[in-house]
Amino acid sequence: MTVTFEKISPNLDLNHKVNLRKARGESLVNMAFGEARLPPFPALVDHLIAGARRNSYGSVLGDDQAREAVSGYFTRRRQPTSPDQVILAPGSKPLLMALSLVLPGDVLLPRPCWNTYAPQAHLAGKRAYGIPIPDDCGGVPEPTALRDSIRAARLLGHDPRIVVVTLPDNPTGTLAPPDTVREICAIAEEEDLFIVSDEIYRDLVHDTRAQILSPAEVVPHRVVVTSGLSKSLAIGGWRIGVARFPSSSAGMHVRDGVASAASEIWSTLARPMQSVAAYAFSEPPELRAHVAATARLHGELARAVHGIMVNAGATCRRPTGGFYVYPDFEPLRANLALHGVTDSDSLRDHLLEEYGIAVLAGHLLGDDSKALRFKAATSMLYGENEEQQWAALNAPRPLALPHIREYLTRIEEAIAKLCA
Amino acid sequence: MTVTFEKISPNLDLNHKVNLRKARGESLVNMAFGEARLPPFPALVDHLIAGARRNSYGSVLGDDQAREAVSGYFTRRRQPTSPDQVILAPGSKPLLMALSLVLPGDVLLPRPCWNTYAPQAHLAGKRAYGIPIPDDCGGVPEPTALRDSIRAARLLGHDPRIVVVTLPDNPTGTLAPPDTVREICAIAEEEDLFIVSDEIYRDLVHDTRAQILSPAEVVPHRVVVTSGLSKSLAIGGWRIGVARFPSSSAGMHVRDGVASAASEIWSTLARPMQSVAAYAFSEPPELRAHVAATARLHGELARAVHGIMVNAGATCRRPTGGFYVYPDFEPLRANLALHGVTDSDSLRDHLLEEYGIAVLAGHLLGDDSKALRFKAATSMLYGENEEQQWAALNAPRPLALPHIREYLTRIEEAIAKLCA
Repeated sequence: MTVTFEKISPNLDLNHKVNLRKARGESLVNMAFGEARLPPFPALVDHLIAGARRNSYGSVLGDDQAREAVSGYFTRRRQPTSPDQVILAPGSKPLLMALSLVLPGDVLLPRPCWNTYAPQAHLAGKRAYGIPIPDDCGGVPEPTALRDSIRAARLLGHDPRIVVVTLPDNPTGTLAPPDTVREICAIAEEEDLFIVSDEIYRDLVHDTRAQILSPAEVVPHRVVVTSGLSKSLAIGGWRIGVARFPSSSAGMHVRDGVASAASEIWSTLARPMQSVAAYAFSEPPELRAHVAATARLHGELARAVHGIMVNAGATCRRPTGGFYVYPDFEPLRANLALHGVTDSDSLRDHLLEEYGIAVLAGHLLGDDSKALRFKAATSMLYGENEEQQWAALNAPRPLALPHIREYLTRIEEAIAKLCA
Repeated sequence: MTVTFEKISPNLDLNHKVNLRKARGESLVNMAFGEARLPPFPALVDHLIAGARRNSYGSVLGDDQAREAVSGYFTRRRQPTSPDQVILAPGSKPLLMALSLVLPGDVLLPRPCWNTYAPQAHLAGKRAYGIPIPDDCGGVPEPTALRDSIRAARLLGHDPRIVVVTLPDNPTGTLAPPDTVREICAIAEEEDLFIVSDEIYRDLVHDTRAQILSPAEVVPHRVVVTSGLSKSLAIGGWRIGVARFPSSSAGMHVRDGVASAASEIWSTLARPMQSVAAYAFSEPPELRAHVAATARLHGELARAVHGIMVNAGATCRRPTGGFYVYPDFEPLRANLALHGVTDSDSLRDHLLEEYGIAVLAGHLLGDDSKALRFKAATSMLYGENEEQQWAALNAPRPLALPHIREYLTRIEEAIAKLCA
């Protein structure tokens, strides 16, 4: 199988274009890229520096100390884990790719979902099915639709065997409630599915009423959990990801498969980064406090942008975790049509060209291209420099900061004009 | 296509086993792992530290400054290169994997060759053909055998379209002479093959008479060159690799495909590592001097171990670059049989169990399992600690250093007993 690639992963591509426009001096509000635009926590930098002299190849699975820390991290989240169940990698992305190569069968995805799951399935020669999400949350397929899709796929002779869930979700910024997760797990048991649970936004739940239940707590023998430090600690540029495998012998078999793929595709996470991982996953109090402050800030901005969308007449699931909102302008279709906006492509283009507001069009996340939906990463609104970003993080009322108010006003005015 | 993985890449796996034995206090001479066991050059560490605060995602292709430096690196090697032709990645391994996914057709490999080429081809759903190397060098298929293999494969309806060459070679430590490279290029033209030229050992040619010719100098439109800093600068643990694509529109199409695969599989090289790359590929005089000293040391040890093998009666291509030797004990088959050594598996086991000498068995590199061949990485003999390693690097006569003499004596005695 040889895959023809036509384009770069759309989020990274758009980020590049936005940076080019910025470099030309254009004023943009960039919410198109899923990055927590915050400075690195100083102790993380210290640990990277402390590990800087470690130049030799490490174990494919990761350093013992780092795997020990990661096992503690999961164990503290009601997922008892031994270091043997852990692999570290340069990001969770390569781990998800390896899982796609190792696990048999086709892949069931929420629709919309993160724009890398489906291309990875295709790279591994798999079919990927997009299944609508429930009305109240994203990150999981709607359970009835999931059952129907499995049945339909099997009638065609296909073999759906993997379901991917994102808890909390990218792109909707919502967290599937425990009951929905239990339903997905029950279906996985009945239909013999493996669950890949992407929990990279887990520590960024900002709705204090929201409860997170991992499928690994319900059907641990059929769940691989992936996570990383890119989102919770805003170090996407350092590329540190982890996977947690079931402790069963079948789980260890999957781990061995991923380790084998790792050894042929990327070898190992860079050693200096493993020093960072050993510190970060041990979660000392100062780091927990920092992550908590970060989550609070994400919540403030996500709710503010959510409010703008809903006030303008769009529907939008209320964000509970991560740093995204995913509005739907269907109720305003007639109004948008007056501006030539009739689908997600023209919606994205209009916002960028008319108002300098960059968002990621819904169809790039597997959603219906005729729908009027986009993903906005509200984590890009903390400021242009570290000073503004630290101010946002430390402010008791970040929305009152002038630079943030300016972003929000600009978004509010643009959305008001769009919907007029 | 779903691949069943049975084992970890054998070199990394063996390294892990050797480390476990060492941790138990056993005295080992480990030549099983292709690492330059040397400290990092201090300025490299300085640049990693200087880049440590760079926490945001970078461009998929690599930072402008790093790509500029890499383009200079190749241009200084008679491969005129613009930054557009360059992609950086966490190692050359993921770049080779992406090339396997992007380039159409089956893969033609030298036999023996680096143990990752064939598994990557299989991961990409390709067939891999191992073609014997010439008598005088490794890293390239013997030209007549290459022609025959292409013909035979096509008769079976297969589609060999890619040939991989390694200049200088892993595992034989030899450099294919320019005439042989030209022959391979001529075949590539006739048969419409794409050439992947792995030049990661390029700066470690230690035979001053040896001349390197890259296929990219001969048929530039059909060659992708890969390289990295793991070998020449002994920073395998930092994972810094590069690829250079042809400047033609077809070449840019391949580059776009690799960029697309990169964006879905690994995103980007960690930003702090891009600061290292920008410095290292600019090759300031102090770094060139360091690499030259390293290459001299590699040559000293490779020739010493080569001498031991040949003196014992084995045949062995004389090493010219990199840090490997690849002896063949066929002339001593009857002697080895007295010790129960009858194939490459039992040869490797015997050396490890009887003498504590770890080498990589030839069949793990695609070679005939009945042959009595192995790869020895002589770069592992510089010492157990940085002090010994710096002493090795700075010594006018490194072979005279007590710790190195001890390694060599132990190898010499073991080989003598094996061949008795």
